[in-house]
Amino acid sequence: MGSDPHLRTERRLSAPPDPQFAERIRASFARQKAMTLIGASLATVAPGVVEIALPYRDDLTQQKGYVHGGIVGMIADSAAGYAAYSLMPADCTLVTAEYKINLLASATAALVARGEVMKAGRTLTVARAEVYACDGTHIASMQQTLMMLPGRTDHPE
Amino acid sequence: MGSDPHLRTERRLSAPPDPQFAERIRASFARQKAMTLIGASLATVAPGVVEIALPYRDDLTQQKGYVHGGIVGMIADSAAGYAAYSLMPADCTLVTAEYKINLLASATAALVARGEVMKAGRTLTVARAEVYACDGTHIASMQQTLMMLPGRTDHPE
Amino acid sequence: MGSDPHLRTERRLSAPPDPQFAERIRASFARQKAMTLIGASLATVAPGVVEIALPYRDDLTQQKGYVHGGIVGMIADSAAGYAAYSLMPADCTLVTAEYKINLLASATAALVARGEVMKAGRTLTVARAEVYACDGTHIASMQQTLMMLPGRTDHPE
Amino acid sequence: MGSDPHLRTERRLSAPPDPQFAERIRASFARQKAMTLIGASLATVAPGVVEIALPYRDDLTQQKGYVHGGIVGMIADSAAGYAAYSLMPADCTLVTAEYKINLLASATAALVARGEVMKAGRTLTVARAEVYACDGTHIASMQQTLMMLPGRTDHPE
Repeated sequence: MGSDPHLRTERRLSAPPDPQFAERIRASFARQKAMTLIGASLATVAPGVVEIALPYRDDLTQQKGYVHGGIVGMIADSAAGYAAYSLMPADCTLVTAEYKINLLASATAALVARGEVMKAGRTLTVARAEVYACDGTHIASMQQTLMMLPGRTDHPE
Repeated sequence: MGSDPHLRTERRLSAPPDPQFAERIRASFARQKAMTLIGASLATVAPGVVEIALPYRDDLTQQKGYVHGGIVGMIADSAAGYAAYSLMPADCTLVTAEYKINLLASATAALVARGEVMKAGRTLTVARAEVYACDGTHIASMQQTLMMLPGRTDHPE
Repeated sequence: MGSDPHLRTERRLSAPPDPQFAERIRASFARQKAMTLIGASLATVAPGVVEIALPYRDDLTQQKGYVHGGIVGMIADSAAGYAAYSLMPADCTLVTAEYKINLLASATAALVARGEVMKAGRTLTVARAEVYACDGTHIASMQQTLMMLPGRTDHPE
Repeated sequence: MGSDPHLRTERRLSAPPDPQFAERIRASFARQKAMTLIGASLATVAPGVVEIALPYRDDLTQQKGYVHGGIVGMIADSAAGYAAYSLMPADCTLVTAEYKINLLASATAALVARGEVMKAGRTLTVARAEVYACDGTHIASMQQTLMMLPGRTDHPE
């Protein structure tokens, strides 16, 4: 195929249009009260890559004591969304158009969701998130489509 | 096409193999501590159809004050999952293999997620969930695949 | 929930912005040489609803003699895409951003894919397609996101 | 996170249960008449990784002259499916339960779909496929769920 997509991704991601992207993401994340509710925190913020950490807590579980699949989806959604946001200009917001997640293993420990941009288009960005448990178990894989809304605030209106 | 799929669905769903399915689902839902955390409650439990209600709460929101898309995914996941579970025998549990959700509108009000079985297979069940706001706005549509695990408890092991 | 989404859909779909939408779709479909290759034809063209018919042919099958899942995806993709296109203005084209399809049963007969618009937004449209065999068997369910490109031709450039 | 998922994948994939997996896949692919119809061929068969090549042909296109998104889905579906099949025992068949594909760029050239296993479970396998054009353009990304049917033939019955 003559071309390493990972290399191409690195190159594409090297110069985010907003040099203050990390501060912008940290401030936006701090406004996500749902992340506070579940105890999630930002672990990594880099151009095109964002990681979110989640402790294991009894009140995040489903009926068998595993972390609820929807909670896994929440941190994957935010991780991939902020990865996309890191490559966008300062004066925009973005919305998740859709995501698809495969749950690969039961989650019974602290988790990290790593979001990564696959294709940053003018209007749509496609991103992925992988969720791992702290012992390295691959918990979930998500593929997501986000839409940039230029000239719109990322704060409540 | 000579055949109304809705009619066929009604017929298929009329006799769940476990007559105690509603009690079983209510008990399982009560063990989902993540549902308690976000304030979700079971609104409807019928063969092949389950509805979950969620109040609007400030601590469920994302950075712009809308209900977090991952929270919308949580109630859709549980609603469709319990719809599937309603048609399964008593001595099994089920896991969500994957789901895909389109977020259609911002959620700024109380929500109801309605889960419905599309195809109940021997191993896999395909279900859908629609999420509506209390004013009738269509918030999200989910399509989901669940796997039945026969002879396995639905309780913590 | 106080509101029947099907009714609301009917109302929304009653006045497509381009009164010549049916001719526009038939001409666009005629340019889809891939549809000719597999023998697919337009069966229904209505506002927000398009059906595509596919005969059973030996050269459309996978290793066990069933219609290839990717072929099922092809007619579902085009049916839902043209359903979306029926509600768009005359001077635009559209692209499929993504789709997700569940294959519910093996296809061993002629098929019809029925595409239907769920939410027609300014930029993104969300549509679904159901694929049925001629004996009424539910073969597949698809959920799809399309992006309108205003002011762009639907012909080769 | 202390663990490279790619390394772990390599290790997991190193010993397919059927040493004759490549012959088995080549024979199965040869029975997929839909692949013959579109001119697709097997380019790589390795444990957990299968590549399918597709020439650009006018009769594979949609209305604007790009390769039809459903055709892109077909080769992605088969590539990921055979990647999954390479890790399965000799006396089984498999079915695609579902797939989700994001179309990232218009396809106007020969394509290669590279399928790769992410998680090979007892019943379900999760795989991905990336589709690239011969100039390196990333055309599509697919995430797929397959179900193994043990003791069932992969031939017409």
